Amino acid sequence: MMTSMHFADALTKRVKATSAVTVGLDPNLEKLPEGITRDAKGLLTFGTGIIDAVKDTASCIKIQMAYYEVLGWEGMKVFFDTCAYAKLQDLIVIADGKRGDIGPSSEAYADAYLSKNSPIDALTVNPYLGSDGITPFIDRAVKHEKGIFVLVKTSNPSSGELQDLPIGDEVVHEHLAQLVESWGAQCLGPATNLSCVGAVVGATYPEEMTYLRTLMPHIPFLIPGYGAQGGTAADVKHGFLPDGTGAIVNASRSIIFANKGRDWREAARRATEEMAGELKMR
Amino acid sequence: MMTSMHFADALTKRVKATSAVTVGLDPNLEKLPEGITRDAKGLLTFGTGIIDAVKDTASCIKIQMAYYEVLGWEGMKVFFDTCAYAKLQDLIVIADGKRGDIGPSSEAYADAYLSKNSPIDALTVNPYLGSDGITPFIDRAVKHEKGIFVLVKTSNPSSGELQDLPIGDEVVHEHLAQLVESWGAQCLGPATNLSCVGAVVGATYPEEMTYLRTLMPHIPFLIPGYGAQGGTAADVKHGFLPDGTGAIVNASRSIIFANKGRDWREAARRATEEMAGELKMR
Repeated sequence: MMTSMHFADALTKRVKATSAVTVGLDPNLEKLPEGITRDAKGLLTFGTGIIDAVKDTASCIKIQMAYYEVLGWEGMKVFFDTCAYAKLQDLIVIADGKRGDIGPSSEAYADAYLSKNSPIDALTVNPYLGSDGITPFIDRAVKHEKGIFVLVKTSNPSSGELQDLPIGDEVVHEHLAQLVESWGAQCLGPATNLSCVGAVVGATYPEEMTYLRTLMPHIPFLIPGYGAQGGTAADVKHGFLPDGTGAIVNASRSIIFANKGRDWREAARRATEEMAGELKMR
Repeated sequence: MMTSMHFADALTKRVKATSAVTVGLDPNLEKLPEGITRDAKGLLTFGTGIIDAVKDTASCIKIQMAYYEVLGWEGMKVFFDTCAYAKLQDLIVIADGKRGDIGPSSEAYADAYLSKNSPIDALTVNPYLGSDGITPFIDRAVKHEKGIFVLVKTSNPSSGELQDLPIGDEVVHEHLAQLVESWGAQCLGPATNLSCVGAVVGATYPEEMTYLRTLMPHIPFLIPGYGAQGGTAADVKHGFLPDGTGAIVNASRSIIFANKGRDWREAARRATEEMAGELKMR
């Protein structure tokens, strides 16, 4: 349990005890394995099964909220139940909701997902509205020893349309990275000197990642895009700090849908162990 | 009911029959009027009360999801129940969720809120991930005669931190506006020549709005920031097209919390009528 420990310190401790692997629970209903029903009950069976399969090797689970919201409030109930189950297994639980709004609404989102008794340890947030949409999340994170991961450079093909626009000598996501570093400087963990404010930096853009690491020395990176999206261990190498800490690497489809037949649990376990091995060799 | 009509045509028809007033249902639990319980049941009572009070004068209701999500899955159930109630009263229902993700996850969000049988007519979306995070929403909007409103220039004080960054001769939100116009050009309504792709443009930045109107001639504007945030009828004037269509104007706190005592319904009704009058005088 992560009680009474700064988020970045707890994250780093857990990564050292397990691996930097973050399993992305993106349970697309149409892709669920054989024998799982396409409904809220099926989502819970699948999610808890994946959690059981990966909990000894993965440090974190990142749960994509869209696949729960698509089932309405019943889906949201399963989302919270799945988060609670993952937390009980000592996984660090990241809600991938990419929330962000004007200040008062961001306060409500922060209270929704980063309250004291929430099973969620960290939330992904969208920076398009600027600092007054982000500050409420940081306030709750500091108060309740939670974390956030701000979208900086996302892993998808069109991420550059806004994020790579040139502004003077830099591009938008580099400018944002400096804001994130300054936001994060206010809440460093005593053990690691890393912030409770993290950044999402896609594995699919390794050159950008290398430079972003220099712009954000105190910021934990959540690196999506490993596996099915094309990122490799070599690509994510420079997202880590020189001492090997400071980053977690997310793979979703290559783990949770490693096998669509009856042995999907065992396939997910093996895929997680394989990825952990790849990351340790980097 | 808006069945079998393009979103922008239905929106325009409804605005002509009522007003451009969009009531922002932002039911901050701490601000609910006297006699309303601070729980899911209270949220439903308050939301349906506001809907009854404003339905004859307002064209649209914009429901801020954060204030429902803060009550977990019970809150989400009330959110959908409130949307369904508003839809039954012939209001155009805008879910203010500011969703946006990589393509496959945006597909799930689009299915969650813009499916055929959803009581929601339109969803606000965040463009930071670029076109492959937006396209799934447009696809569903086209297929099911729904709409989206893309955040372009938001009403909050720090919106400029990213949105106003200079890129060559323009700024980020102006560049985005041209993308939005191009995305929207593929789905114009036969009656209005306006798109099912809309844009959020804050009332608090009237000069920017005037220029954005020229960059997005086919895009309906959702203009937040009227009333409590400081926007006036003069400020929003240039968000409309020359024929007086093409925009809806949102006020939240100045309507729903016009009075915190027992006559909050009547106060909301009067505030809506007053705002409709101001907009007609513009």
